[in-house]
Amino acid sequence: MTAEITANALTLQLRSVLDGRWGPTRDVVRRQITEQRLLPQTGLTLDEYRTRMLGQMKDMVPLGFPASGFRPEHGGTGDVGSAVTAIETLGYGDLSLMVKAGVQWGLFGGAVENLGTQAHHDQYVKGLIDLDVLGCFAMTETGHGSNVQQLETTATYLPDSGEFEIHSPTPGSRKDYIGGAAEHARYAAVFAQLVTGAPGEEAASRGVHCFVVPIRDENGDDLPGVTTSDCGYKGGLPGVDNGRILFDRVRIPRANLLNRYADVAEDGTYSSPIESDNRRFFTMLGTLVRGRVTVGASAGAAGRFGLALAVRYALQRRQFQAPGGDGELLLLDYRTHQRRLLPLVARAYAFAVAQNEVTAELHELQTADPATVDPKDLRQLETKAAAIKAGHTALAQTAISEAREACGGAGYMSENLLPLLRGDIDVFTTFEGDNLVLTQLVAKEALTSYADDVQGLDAAGWVRFVANMAKSIALEKTAARQVVQTLLDDSDEDPENSALTHPGTQLRLLRNREEHLTRTAAARMRRAQDDDDAEALEVFTDTQDHLIKVGEAHIERIVLESFVEVIGRVEDRETRDVLKKVRNLFVYSLLEEDLGWFLMHRHVSVERAKAIRRGVNELCGDLRPHARELIDAFGVPEVCFDIPMLTDEHFTG
Amino acid sequence: MTAEITANALTLQLRSVLDGRWGPTRDVVRRQITEQRLLPQTGLTLDEYRTRMLGQMKDMVPLGFPASGFRPEHGGTGDVGSAVTAIETLGYGDLSLMVKAGVQWGLFGGAVENLGTQAHHDQYVKGLIDLDVLGCFAMTETGHGSNVQQLETTATYLPDSGEFEIHSPTPGSRKDYIGGAAEHARYAAVFAQLVTGAPGEEAASRGVHCFVVPIRDENGDDLPGVTTSDCGYKGGLPGVDNGRILFDRVRIPRANLLNRYADVAEDGTYSSPIESDNRRFFTMLGTLVRGRVTVGASAGAAGRFGLALAVRYALQRRQFQAPGGDGELLLLDYRTHQRRLLPLVARAYAFAVAQNEVTAELHELQTADPATVDPKDLRQLETKAAAIKAGHTALAQTAISEAREACGGAGYMSENLLPLLRGDIDVFTTFEGDNLVLTQLVAKEALTSYADDVQGLDAAGWVRFVANMAKSIALEKTAARQVVQTLLDDSDEDPENSALTHPGTQLRLLRNREEHLTRTAAARMRRAQDDDDAEALEVFTDTQDHLIKVGEAHIERIVLESFVEVIGRVEDRETRDVLKKVRNLFVYSLLEEDLGWFLMHRHVSVERAKAIRRGVNELCGDLRPHARELIDAFGVPEVCFDIPMLTDEHFTG
Repeated sequence: MTAEITANALTLQLRSVLDGRWGPTRDVVRRQITEQRLLPQTGLTLDEYRTRMLGQMKDMVPLGFPASGFRPEHGGTGDVGSAVTAIETLGYGDLSLMVKAGVQWGLFGGAVENLGTQAHHDQYVKGLIDLDVLGCFAMTETGHGSNVQQLETTATYLPDSGEFEIHSPTPGSRKDYIGGAAEHARYAAVFAQLVTGAPGEEAASRGVHCFVVPIRDENGDDLPGVTTSDCGYKGGLPGVDNGRILFDRVRIPRANLLNRYADVAEDGTYSSPIESDNRRFFTMLGTLVRGRVTVGASAGAAGRFGLALAVRYALQRRQFQAPGGDGELLLLDYRTHQRRLLPLVARAYAFAVAQNEVTAELHELQTADPATVDPKDLRQLETKAAAIKAGHTALAQTAISEAREACGGAGYMSENLLPLLRGDIDVFTTFEGDNLVLTQLVAKEALTSYADDVQGLDAAGWVRFVANMAKSIALEKTAARQVVQTLLDDSDEDPENSALTHPGTQLRLLRNREEHLTRTAAARMRRAQDDDDAEALEVFTDTQDHLIKVGEAHIERIVLESFVEVIGRVEDRETRDVLKKVRNLFVYSLLEEDLGWFLMHRHVSVERAKAIRRGVNELCGDLRPHARELIDAFGVPEVCFDIPMLTDEHFTG
Repeated sequence: MTAEITANALTLQLRSVLDGRWGPTRDVVRRQITEQRLLPQTGLTLDEYRTRMLGQMKDMVPLGFPASGFRPEHGGTGDVGSAVTAIETLGYGDLSLMVKAGVQWGLFGGAVENLGTQAHHDQYVKGLIDLDVLGCFAMTETGHGSNVQQLETTATYLPDSGEFEIHSPTPGSRKDYIGGAAEHARYAAVFAQLVTGAPGEEAASRGVHCFVVPIRDENGDDLPGVTTSDCGYKGGLPGVDNGRILFDRVRIPRANLLNRYADVAEDGTYSSPIESDNRRFFTMLGTLVRGRVTVGASAGAAGRFGLALAVRYALQRRQFQAPGGDGELLLLDYRTHQRRLLPLVARAYAFAVAQNEVTAELHELQTADPATVDPKDLRQLETKAAAIKAGHTALAQTAISEAREACGGAGYMSENLLPLLRGDIDVFTTFEGDNLVLTQLVAKEALTSYADDVQGLDAAGWVRFVANMAKSIALEKTAARQVVQTLLDDSDEDPENSALTHPGTQLRLLRNREEHLTRTAAARMRRAQDDDDAEALEVFTDTQDHLIKVGEAHIERIVLESFVEVIGRVEDRETRDVLKKVRNLFVYSLLEEDLGWFLMHRHVSVERAKAIRRGVNELCGDLRPHARELIDAFGVPEVCFDIPMLTDEHFTG
């Protein structure tokens, strides 16, 4: 078996578009996947699988990317984009390994790197990179997943001993689903309500902060006051040792508060450079954006992996007599099969490109001198990361499910990997931000030009805020990219008058939808607010589905803009032509999916609606001859296709 | 823990509607699930799980339903509806057990019962029931799943010895994914191309027939010429020992041909009461309809199980501050959460009721004197079984996926059962007829009033046939049910003029859509056929997605008709009112899902479209107070809710 795919010129061109800036990093990880066959396994016990993961992580240390995630002055090599891209590329291998690596170097490491100060960097970063310091990220609690501000674990400062006491005061405050907590982690980055008071002042809650808490000794036994337990079997990710942690008045030194954004003096006095509790909380949370970017990216890779498996099978498997021909048809020659897979391939392209852009933006902001970073850029990145995470993980889940079904019985056999991918990907829509919660967050941002007060508002406060804003709403347009603006200028203001294949028309349709939804959502809240009888709860409930639609429309719009921009930079003509067809299929299938809305709000005429449906079919036919090249360009290592349904003579003979 | 749910009057009323005619059978299985905790497991090895299954099957023999599937004159008790309903109800327990039971008593047993004659019944039925004769159903081959007519295994008659020689002539002819073949089955019902000739005549292929082939000896070792292997781990169903079988010129006695529809004389002469090869093939296949009914029904039960878990969690779990209130909101008070679960609950009701009707029709036809059964009724049942199987399994898969996501991280833990249901249900859309293939079969039936020549046509022949028919198409209306006809008469012919909550309007909208799609599909084929340049392949490919839509529209229409009829028979007023809301939510959410089509073809006005969207929200709100009763009425045994996320103080405390 050769390590790399054989590829023609078009494949290579497409691949370089998808690989983007950190292509060399991708190749390093591809080689590792190939040489060590880093593929999902069945039939191992949990213990065996977990041990395997730790070994594979150790083998990755010399590849360099674990160090890339940390600044040189902290002991790393400072190439955030490479660190994220490396973990993304593990999505072409074993997602258990991806999650383990993500927890250690991304989440636990990220907390130390971004919330800690020099003492923490000196103490932990080197060990973090080379795995002497194994950690976990203890944010989620059984009672509170998405609502981080309401976490119940407490960290009470005791001025007498100069220690914090970490405690789980309620059953629901148990830390739960924490990757690494069941077995491997010796340290936890614990998110807890900080309680302290200055001398003479009553101790008060200062909101959620992060603490480094040792949880296990060298033998792997729980430290005094710490009780860990094992989540056991899950829907997938068998190599990740998810567990639970209960704290019974565990003492840690004052220095273990990660104190970049807030500190507690020896006498208990609380201080922070950020005055607003809300802003401080969201600033701290914001620095953790890397995890969200990584999860979206890795899910995207896993989705491409699944699609590549199904397309290759469909290009090999014959079933039913070809009408008017001899022999049986290839699965991919069936319209239904094309419709099942090719629009997802198109979507995978668009999202991969948008994801690369987010990674690059993250890289710029997290490698720059913090003093020069505009907080507004950070917040925009957070919104975009939330948007792409929600969209990309949902796409991956759909793609892998469709891929599994498209391979029939063979697709249900673990030896053919698809059921393993299916089980592993399932939780990506939930962790690092539940997709529904993130989509609403994106919608809120679309509804309000950014204002400090908004981000931390609870539902009631937010309804009030928007209602007030909406009185004079003039939707703040995000500054459009140059290329997008040019294309918009180049197309008729009424999309109905421009060809649907024109990118300007496509951009306008998605922009108009988002604007329409945003405007009507704000108006609806204002009306409800003007009505004195309306309860805040009612307003919120009545508009929630509207909000979700705002968020979804926003996600699709920004992905298209990113894709359009990247296609515009492709020089090779054949490659550009193929990518334009991919973009058309992406847009047509989005429009088809939401045709009811477009017709109902008269953004699309009945005639055009029919053309859209026909167009999806035609584009599937147009791209059919390029199907193999399109998925080869993903650059999934050839070892991933060394499975019975693609190689065994019983299937291929 | 009590074995039964506590239930109020509404719950009991609703439950009796859902339980239907074989309610007592359901209760027998519910008790068995409760007493033996027949729930999906994790952490067992394949061997342990398989052994567990066999033990649980043995415990079910005394319950009586294994015998119900066989006619009294063959050694059974002749209550087909009870047999199917019992296996359906195992969908509230462990689907591995359901599949094992279905393979033994339904598929293998069904082949012997329906394709065999007295000698076979005498020889096998008793042992089949009490598990002395363990069998498997060896139809699918690695190379051919859906296309049964093209199976490659051969059964060549050897007049010299009076035996058949069963052989796997090509790699693709290996029998694959066969439940029971890996370990437990000692016999296989093998589907193979029968080759024989009368004396002096050259031996010729007579099409696919079914043979009883012993595959293992008493020690469980492969018999000479038989090579079995193990499919190993799958996406789910770990208790089912799926395997593969290769035959190397295995000899079996002539008597092992299941010879109800065709026989081979000692001298090799082939005879059959059915002259047309095609008709014979489809008649034989048709008798196996019970498997398809059972799979749809069991999937439905599993889907209800998943929804019940998610709704109970959502009625207990709080998250985020209630706007304008104190404390956090229950998940089910969120609009998005209602929209996620309640339309699926409504759909589960409609399909459960339609499924019961199919089971009853199957019962009538399979318990009647075969001489009195109208073949047309059999064929209608086959179409309906295909329709409900495709619709119900797809619904179950969606419902369980949504349920899993709706429970967040807890929903990903195996201890909370949802990931196990998710993995198990995944293959139900594929086995016993791939849903896409079945939906096209349904569409073809919708397009042509039944004609013998149609059922077995290949794609090319079928396109020709429809094109010819379509020249004079006057869509044959299925004789409407009385109640449906009355409701239609009672509503305006233009649905836009009748209230959308009127069942007549609802029926008309779904009927009109199906008729429109059917008419245009036929016209499209005719146009393509008139064009001399059109290749048969092109016509087929161009219309395939249209056909799928015909099939889907048909499925939804017949489910609604069934639901309307059953609601009409409910006497208790409160129960009927709740069921009408459920029906409305079912219809509104169907319309919303396909709003693009309804608008595009002007079956719904823009104003009505907006009312539909609002209506879904309002109906979710209306049904919210009854959510618990709605899912309690499924009658999922209480033991199924004895899981940490519903009982552990960390979640509930």
